Amino acid sequence: MSAVPATAAFDPQSPVFLAHQGGKLGVHATQPLRDRADLALLYTPGVAEVSLAIAADPSLAARYTSRGHTVAVISDGTAVLGLGDIGPLGALPVMEGKAVLFKHFAGLDAVPVVMESGTVDELVEAIARIAPTYGGINLEDISAPRCFDIEEQLKDRLDIPVFHDDQHGTAIVVLAGLTNACTVLGRHLEEQRVVVAGAGAAGVAVTKLLQRAGIRDVIVCDSRGIIAPGRADLTGHKRTLAASTNPRGVNGGLGDALVEADVYIGVSGGTVPEVELARMARDCMIFALANPTPEVHPHVAHRYAAIVATGRSDFPNQINNVLAFPGIFRGALDSGARRITEAMKLAAARAIADLVESPSAEEIVPSVFQPGVADAVAAAVARLA
Amino acid sequence: MSAVPATAAFDPQSPVFLAHQGGKLGVHATQPLRDRADLALLYTPGVAEVSLAIAADPSLAARYTSRGHTVAVISDGTAVLGLGDIGPLGALPVMEGKAVLFKHFAGLDAVPVVMESGTVDELVEAIARIAPTYGGINLEDISAPRCFDIEEQLKDRLDIPVFHDDQHGTAIVVLAGLTNACTVLGRHLEEQRVVVAGAGAAGVAVTKLLQRAGIRDVIVCDSRGIIAPGRADLTGHKRTLAASTNPRGVNGGLGDALVEADVYIGVSGGTVPEVELARMARDCMIFALANPTPEVHPHVAHRYAAIVATGRSDFPNQINNVLAFPGIFRGALDSGARRITEAMKLAAARAIADLVESPSAEEIVPSVFQPGVADAVAAAVARLA
Repeated sequence: MSAVPATAAFDPQSPVFLAHQGGKLGVHATQPLRDRADLALLYTPGVAEVSLAIAADPSLAARYTSRGHTVAVISDGTAVLGLGDIGPLGALPVMEGKAVLFKHFAGLDAVPVVMESGTVDELVEAIARIAPTYGGINLEDISAPRCFDIEEQLKDRLDIPVFHDDQHGTAIVVLAGLTNACTVLGRHLEEQRVVVAGAGAAGVAVTKLLQRAGIRDVIVCDSRGIIAPGRADLTGHKRTLAASTNPRGVNGGLGDALVEADVYIGVSGGTVPEVELARMARDCMIFALANPTPEVHPHVAHRYAAIVATGRSDFPNQINNVLAFPGIFRGALDSGARRITEAMKLAAARAIADLVESPSAEEIVPSVFQPGVADAVAAAVARLA
Repeated sequence: MSAVPATAAFDPQSPVFLAHQGGKLGVHATQPLRDRADLALLYTPGVAEVSLAIAADPSLAARYTSRGHTVAVISDGTAVLGLGDIGPLGALPVMEGKAVLFKHFAGLDAVPVVMESGTVDELVEAIARIAPTYGGINLEDISAPRCFDIEEQLKDRLDIPVFHDDQHGTAIVVLAGLTNACTVLGRHLEEQRVVVAGAGAAGVAVTKLLQRAGIRDVIVCDSRGIIAPGRADLTGHKRTLAASTNPRGVNGGLGDALVEADVYIGVSGGTVPEVELARMARDCMIFALANPTPEVHPHVAHRYAAIVATGRSDFPNQINNVLAFPGIFRGALDSGARRITEAMKLAAARAIADLVESPSAEEIVPSVFQPGVADAVAAAVARLA
């Protein structure tokens, strides 16, 4: 199903379209090709020696091909930004943009791979087949719940890092922000009552990572209300959530979940009535991460919350995945890690939080352009490889 | 089955390995990313406008993504150079080298995609699924006879150019060389008696293109001798060859085929006894294209032939695919061609032949570094789009 608005504006003279003219990526040779002698080194007959050496010892591929610094940014275009299923071609500009970020922030060479969508098995098959080309795989904008199975199956099959950024990138930066927010407010992270609104890719990953960080009281809501064992409509990953969250057994809607909650994390794209926000605990924290329209406008959120974060760059405390994924992959590739482990995600969140020298209500995460973010994350990840 | 010699030499200090350190390719952004404003143009929220416009009108992808100038160089590593089945990782340096050539000679951005091998259907499925990423697909070093079916099925399924270079690149440059060789010798191309030694990817494609260029008398030999209807061991593409070649109904081995032959084209990697060469017509033409060891050494070939060509750069008349593929793809992508047609291949061969101002026995094809080759080929291809 396509979620493309019928009225997509196309103005070739607008800054956005001018900036996209001809695409955003190019490929270049890293070695000079000046004459026949260069040709004989970089191509036949010289290259045959390298090919044979790698065939005899595949570990040499990391050293003598671009694989060691190349990440595939893979999407089937089924859940692109907040736009929904716009197909592989529609997804391509986003994946190119992601590759630009990989280069800029981590010096990694990333290439988009957009795919015709299909079943979980079909996508896993295709991705596993082309995987030898790459040092790591960044899955992107694949709809839930397919994204969970695709990532799990690829992690089992491949010996390179596979990382669904919509899940784990978001979760890592949320945890970093929440860590500093608790520091600012003089609270213990583990003791916070958290409500996660949204049970898609980001909601599930945020929940799992917060639990792994020690938070016990997490309630997850989807559009029908609190995810709890009593609900008859739950399948798959939501059934798992029902069993592993909501320890106080709260029933009802989001408004019921928010009673005396310390933290609201919106990754749903919905809205929250102000009357429900009023039920939250005093000096609470509101992370309204939907883009471009937060679930709660920051001006409204500040009436109830001591700390407010959004996904937007025009308000303080932007929870932006770009704080995490470039360094995560840099660290994994540099250290030869075969997986991004849960411990690495926690360490990455810690590293991001630590980059804020003096956390305040207006600064719980570093700026995207703060120098050294990717290096610090990479070092934290590599230490655990 | 692996054809990797057990004694593959690996000397990290040799020029070849030093030139391959870190791989041969990098990816770069074509637009500056300096600040939040750039970020908002190249990534969210700006990119959403471009994605929506493409989703509404997929033809815009050629203009607003890198797809319009990006070629996938795809291999499963089953027939790499003359090395045989060395697997996807072993193939990767060759594919990177090919990408370097695409950039250098045609300004195109090519990315390697090496795949775990599998059945024809499995490879076609995987390639078709990732095809939206690319403006064209260069298949490379996939073993025969699978390469024929893979290319045909992809051409049927996809609306972008698909070109198996081991077949058609070789065929185009052979035809170019033969055209000028006939000019030098004052002969009519159509009237030459041609023997093609080798019925793999290159042999089949050379045969078909020479026939399309008007040559009627072509005999094809494989390791068991002349491919003719009487042979009981023929299947698939060889059965088709038996029906469409050898109009004089010659039987026997390569030596029988060569009696009074005007042209020998070796794409087999075998050798030819000198006594058999002696049976060829007077002032014949010998194209011994196996690399690095031609089927006939040029010194021997010159005892019988008026014109000798090889695949090597250290003898005159190097039949090198790089004269063809960069311009072929450049022309196809620039003109929005959805297929590389037979007419385009003939026109490309003609364009390459015409680039030699005064053909002679020592110069029947241009040098690979002669300026303007790709431009001329691209123009010839684009004219027919």
